[in-house]
Amino acid sequence: MPREITSFSNPLVKQARGLRDKKHRRREGRFLAEGLRILTEAHESGVLPETLFFSDDSHPLLKRLIAEVESAGGSAIATSADILHKISGKDNPQTVLGVFRGFDTALSRIDWTAAPLWIVAQALRDPGNIGTILRTGDAVGAGGLILVDECADPFSVEAVRASMGALFTQRIAQARWGEFIDWLRAGPAQLIGTSLKATRDYQDARYRKPAFILVGNEQAGLPASYEAECDLLVKMPMLGRADSLNAAVATAVMAYEVINQWRRA
Amino acid sequence: MPREITSFSNPLVKQARGLRDKKHRRREGRFLAEGLRILTEAHESGVLPETLFFSDDSHPLLKRLIAEVESAGGSAIATSADILHKISGKDNPQTVLGVFRGFDTALSRIDWTAAPLWIVAQALRDPGNIGTILRTGDAVGAGGLILVDECADPFSVEAVRASMGALFTQRIAQARWGEFIDWLRAGPAQLIGTSLKATRDYQDARYRKPAFILVGNEQAGLPASYEAECDLLVKMPMLGRADSLNAAVATAVMAYEVINQWRRA
Repeated sequence: MPREITSFSNPLVKQARGLRDKKHRRREGRFLAEGLRILTEAHESGVLPETLFFSDDSHPLLKRLIAEVESAGGSAIATSADILHKISGKDNPQTVLGVFRGFDTALSRIDWTAAPLWIVAQALRDPGNIGTILRTGDAVGAGGLILVDECADPFSVEAVRASMGALFTQRIAQARWGEFIDWLRAGPAQLIGTSLKATRDYQDARYRKPAFILVGNEQAGLPASYEAECDLLVKMPMLGRADSLNAAVATAVMAYEVINQWRRA
Repeated sequence: MPREITSFSNPLVKQARGLRDKKHRRREGRFLAEGLRILTEAHESGVLPETLFFSDDSHPLLKRLIAEVESAGGSAIATSADILHKISGKDNPQTVLGVFRGFDTALSRIDWTAAPLWIVAQALRDPGNIGTILRTGDAVGAGGLILVDECADPFSVEAVRASMGALFTQRIAQARWGEFIDWLRAGPAQLIGTSLKATRDYQDARYRKPAFILVGNEQAGLPASYEAECDLLVKMPMLGRADSLNAAVATAVMAYEVINQWRRA
């Protein structure tokens, strides 16, 4: 049976609320995900929250989720919309919110044979871009996202929200560049960079499996030495005044070209 | 010569700060754009701010911008980083910020013969998506963005920022659906909707000019009656568990397919 919490000062509420902060997420090894859609996605991917807060259990999917969380030994907690607002910080909080145990993001846990396509992001600063790239990764059948150098936290509320649940279906790894390259070069990977300096049109290159699409920092793009490491450097047509696309958009345009080539083959 | 403002309570500071709020933007017919990159883009597109606030004029591009604003009869105001922070609300404010006169967004001002491709967004709620779509529109050589039904404000700080200056190179119109359709059907437009319900792969359709890509609300997608009005309904391959892409991502993937077909022809 779900227990009920009505006090803002309840330690579980305070602890959950703390997870909006990166330092707390690191220390606790936990993160937040909100909304029935994302929590259902997590559940269908075999991941249940340790603690589930909800303000309205009338939805049948939520009823099932509550039962599953409890039978797995987790806690389901009935609470108010006000307390969900306090935890999530959102003005229009979802009716359900879960506290999840963080994933192990060691690069060594990535099995590149599990998928033909992987996405690599370098020094990406916008958590919304990271979540959006995870969502795109799911759509194009990528295996996951490897975050290189200092990136925004993929477990932040903004990234989890933008991923629309893909956080639970995509593998996530974090690594330094040198470590990533050593790992990559032990296999047959094709590393594909998009660059303003490239001369080859992205539709004129031929992509092979496993393909690793490398996307650089929102402002600076990829460092020259990282571009030099790429097997292919390509550019997308830019017909207007701007010289670049949003990082998540560029990743998606590139990823769809790769899978479109494979679909035709 | 630029004047100097050092007081937080200066009426020009208060007025500029008010423009973070949609109601104020409407009432004043003005909006804010920050950052040398975006303001330079505006300038190169022939648009100067009425008022330019800056905290550091050491950059040659900014020096030129100040001179241009003053010779066009606008005001250049030297101020502090603290005051720029107060106006923009950003923790790390840019060193320059402009107050611009709003554009006329009447649909009748759009000349569809000016470009082969246009983007239409329906009930899009995220200003970041609107800005990102403007940025993509510039990249694919679109003429502009037509906002149908109740969309987020394209002149909000978030949208302007995400557009990276494309707000000044793309035409923007706002219209009700009926008005838009009447306008569209007076010409030879091809209206292209992306839909979860479509059976035709987006690469199997043939796109002709002028093409209008229609993208729906982030949560609900397009209303069925709007889909019924489309000349083509197509879908992108979704190889994972998710059933949709981020709206700005979907628009970009679609737009690049359209221009790629035209590039091959």
